Amino acid sequence: MLISLAELVDRFGGQLIGNGETKVAGFAPLDNADSSHITFLTNPRLRNEVKRSQAGALIISPKDNQLVGDLFKGSRIVAKNPYAYFAHAAQLFESFKTIPPVQGIHPSAVIDPSAKVAPTASIGPFVTIEAEAEIGENCVIEAGCFIGRKAKVGAGCRFFPRVIFLNECEIGERGVLRPGAVIGCEGFGFANEDGVWVKIPQTGRVIIGNDVQIGANTTIDRGALSDTIIENGVKLDNQIQIGHNCHVGENSAMAGCVGVAGSAIFGKNCTVGGAAMIGGHLTIADRTHITASSVVQSSVTEPGVYSGFYPLAKHQEWEKTAVLVRKLGTMRDRIRELEKTVKALTETEK
Amino acid sequence: MLISLAELVDRFGGQLIGNGETKVAGFAPLDNADSSHITFLTNPRLRNEVKRSQAGALIISPKDNQLVGDLFKGSRIVAKNPYAYFAHAAQLFESFKTIPPVQGIHPSAVIDPSAKVAPTASIGPFVTIEAEAEIGENCVIEAGCFIGRKAKVGAGCRFFPRVIFLNECEIGERGVLRPGAVIGCEGFGFANEDGVWVKIPQTGRVIIGNDVQIGANTTIDRGALSDTIIENGVKLDNQIQIGHNCHVGENSAMAGCVGVAGSAIFGKNCTVGGAAMIGGHLTIADRTHITASSVVQSSVTEPGVYSGFYPLAKHQEWEKTAVLVRKLGTMRDRIRELEKTVKALTETEK
Amino acid sequence: MLISLAELVDRFGGQLIGNGETKVAGFAPLDNADSSHITFLTNPRLRNEVKRSQAGALIISPKDNQLVGDLFKGSRIVAKNPYAYFAHAAQLFESFKTIPPVQGIHPSAVIDPSAKVAPTASIGPFVTIEAEAEIGENCVIEAGCFIGRKAKVGAGCRFFPRVIFLNECEIGERGVLRPGAVIGCEGFGFANEDGVWVKIPQTGRVIIGNDVQIGANTTIDRGALSDTIIENGVKLDNQIQIGHNCHVGENSAMAGCVGVAGSAIFGKNCTVGGAAMIGGHLTIADRTHITASSVVQSSVTEPGVYSGFYPLAKHQEWEKTAVLVRKLGTMRDRIRELEKTVKALTETEK
Repeated sequence: MLISLAELVDRFGGQLIGNGETKVAGFAPLDNADSSHITFLTNPRLRNEVKRSQAGALIISPKDNQLVGDLFKGSRIVAKNPYAYFAHAAQLFESFKTIPPVQGIHPSAVIDPSAKVAPTASIGPFVTIEAEAEIGENCVIEAGCFIGRKAKVGAGCRFFPRVIFLNECEIGERGVLRPGAVIGCEGFGFANEDGVWVKIPQTGRVIIGNDVQIGANTTIDRGALSDTIIENGVKLDNQIQIGHNCHVGENSAMAGCVGVAGSAIFGKNCTVGGAAMIGGHLTIADRTHITASSVVQSSVTEPGVYSGFYPLAKHQEWEKTAVLVRKLGTMRDRIRELEKTVKALTETEK
Repeated sequence: MLISLAELVDRFGGQLIGNGETKVAGFAPLDNADSSHITFLTNPRLRNEVKRSQAGALIISPKDNQLVGDLFKGSRIVAKNPYAYFAHAAQLFESFKTIPPVQGIHPSAVIDPSAKVAPTASIGPFVTIEAEAEIGENCVIEAGCFIGRKAKVGAGCRFFPRVIFLNECEIGERGVLRPGAVIGCEGFGFANEDGVWVKIPQTGRVIIGNDVQIGANTTIDRGALSDTIIENGVKLDNQIQIGHNCHVGENSAMAGCVGVAGSAIFGKNCTVGGAAMIGGHLTIADRTHITASSVVQSSVTEPGVYSGFYPLAKHQEWEKTAVLVRKLGTMRDRIRELEKTVKALTETEK
Repeated sequence: MLISLAELVDRFGGQLIGNGETKVAGFAPLDNADSSHITFLTNPRLRNEVKRSQAGALIISPKDNQLVGDLFKGSRIVAKNPYAYFAHAAQLFESFKTIPPVQGIHPSAVIDPSAKVAPTASIGPFVTIEAEAEIGENCVIEAGCFIGRKAKVGAGCRFFPRVIFLNECEIGERGVLRPGAVIGCEGFGFANEDGVWVKIPQTGRVIIGNDVQIGANTTIDRGALSDTIIENGVKLDNQIQIGHNCHVGENSAMAGCVGVAGSAIFGKNCTVGGAAMIGGHLTIADRTHITASSVVQSSVTEPGVYSGFYPLAKHQEWEKTAVLVRKLGTMRDRIRELEKTVKALTETEK
């Protein structure tokens, strides 16, 4: 389905430069687009591509428009945040292609009679819904999902195949859980008694707000005594592990493979880069940004960007350097010794 | 259900100080508890909370009891290991709430006629059990689990939804496998032949002892020629990867996101912190403790606590320091040069 | 089933030293083998084991054969690449034990009428195959797998239980996907608009070549605008995460727990050690080898072996060293200061 630039501006704002009747069929990258595509410029390094791009239309920031806008041969939409504009417009294009889910319950699904499933919900094959669970209006629960006893799923949620959402956990509206995500399993709570581990029952829940997205094979443990909390708007990528009793603040986002140990408290609007690891019982301030692969072992009290990973090198160099890292104490001692001797020499000199 | 302190002491030991008739309904943290709760003190930093706590009862160590016991307004149980005491008592409270599983096989399950399923076992919807597999007494195999050919599951095991337990693998009694765990998949065995990888069949099994717990989406590879062994009492958290031919000794525990490469041998009573990575073909001594995010690339022959991860810093500081780490060789050379010059100067001086 | 050495040499080449009529039943390690086994020597540290080994036959390289071949009491096959020879021969032994899958569709599977399933394919219990998907000849799709709309699975693929292969994704011939793998889920694409994350639809696919193996619980995201590409012969271990728009070149291999951020481009014949992390938008040259646990945050333009992880130490030492790492700037300044002073002293001296 084609959309005119005038219609895009009508829906999403922005200033049109060029022909509002220009119609586009969807997005493509600057260098791949043809005249049927709309594209966008967000990366300053790609400014040179604007001149060569064959796209029919371009979404561009006011600043970039001043710098390179005139070099583009098609029409432009000038918008404050081209990337967000792209996201909204791409959702519109996507909506034309989406096949609406079939409402109702697949005959193979096993639903406890005491569960409440909204009539507009779509329940796929081999889904299990246990006693007293609730599934809201327009939810899509795909093949093989498991919804535990007394769990509550808000309206408009989409669970991809094989999501596991365990007993008593809750999620608000419009949540998206990707394949293989496990919500509400018992966390790692054991007391050591003379060398043997005694299991501590995990009696809390996982409580998730609205507009939360959770990636494939990500796991979130239920609370031990109190609850694990994921606030509104949080986005979690694939293969993340969130320990029991964690609290992730509104609109915080974590990239793939992040691990968060139990009882860590994240503020709002934080970001965590891929594979970063957050220790337990820490507090992370609002608007903290942890870069990928960093290890956080003490609380962060001040917003900012934090890093901590070992720099890559050719393996032979690394071998030499790694030895020196372990000898840093000796190096410091040698510097101290030198300082003493030199000081003595300088004084003799005078 | 309410329990009197006298009954707790009767079951689990400890010295009662106060009113044995005091009844409690369950556990809550020191600062959240009301008079219907029992609580416990294990973290020395929370000693100050004892005075303010509204809990009806407190489990406390002899030492803490001497220090702050008298400040607590309710009754006390003095126990050598309050955390383990809490674990045992919490299991008791939990047992009152647990809904007993329905014995028997759900009509949707697909069970090979040659499989042996104990009559007291509970087999959930969409479970697959292949030929000659054995499921012991009182096992609970939840929705969507897969038990491969000739696999053996000991009495009293609980497999949460969607556990995959592949052919010929074995687990002892009272094992707990959490959702999405995969036991016995073929490990990463390939021979390189002129740039192309040739698969090495993985013909060993995974053999798991009694009282083992395995976390959500954790994967344990079957052995290549011999078996992968997980001994009695081992506890593995979520998203752990254990390579082929590993051996994890009795009562060792690993936190979430740990990776263990093939043929690593762990002793007994080891602990591995979250996201630590253990290289292949290493031997780790009994009672070794690896802290979170550490990388272990050579054997550990002596018990103790080991660490190795890069310290976190503000990103700008990190950038400067990371450059210096790579220049450590130059720094060492400059120190050497200085030492020579200073030595020469000192000798001239004499 | 027994095989004579003559037959092995006939199938796989190599030079026979000893009795070609010697029959063996399968492989065992050097130190465990008895006369019914064939074994192999690849690790130079195990050369001493050759003399003691009770194996009936030994695969050995020309060089090792010169060094220790005569010490072995059984027959030998001298082969250029004993490990690859072992792999091929072990596949042969394995083929005798393999129970052929039952062709046809299990009655519990839910297959859309518009899907095309080859008559020689084996479709297990609780499998879902959506509209217009295609499953090639001799495929084995095990219990609980999910194949999305318009997905294409080439001939001879094996999907272990609970693999999720989402809409429009494609895989070539002879692919092996292990339990819980998730192919084609939407990647982590969000635009930040005034603190709120706006989802970017992920409209690309995952396109996988021939002879690719993908490990348990590994996740590969579909492309955002273009496709994620996995070329022929790639081998991925368990719990790997590959972000959207990545491209992994022919015959590259990655060990368990590796994370690759979006739009990373790998060359051919690369290897990545376990738990290494690769940043987004990087290019990695052909024949690059990243060692385990290394963090790659800039492109690698030259083939070679690269490392970068913090060395392990006793925790107390680590604590001291980690402080010094953060003070490297100060140490460098102190060295500079010393150099100045010493230079001044030397000049005075002259």
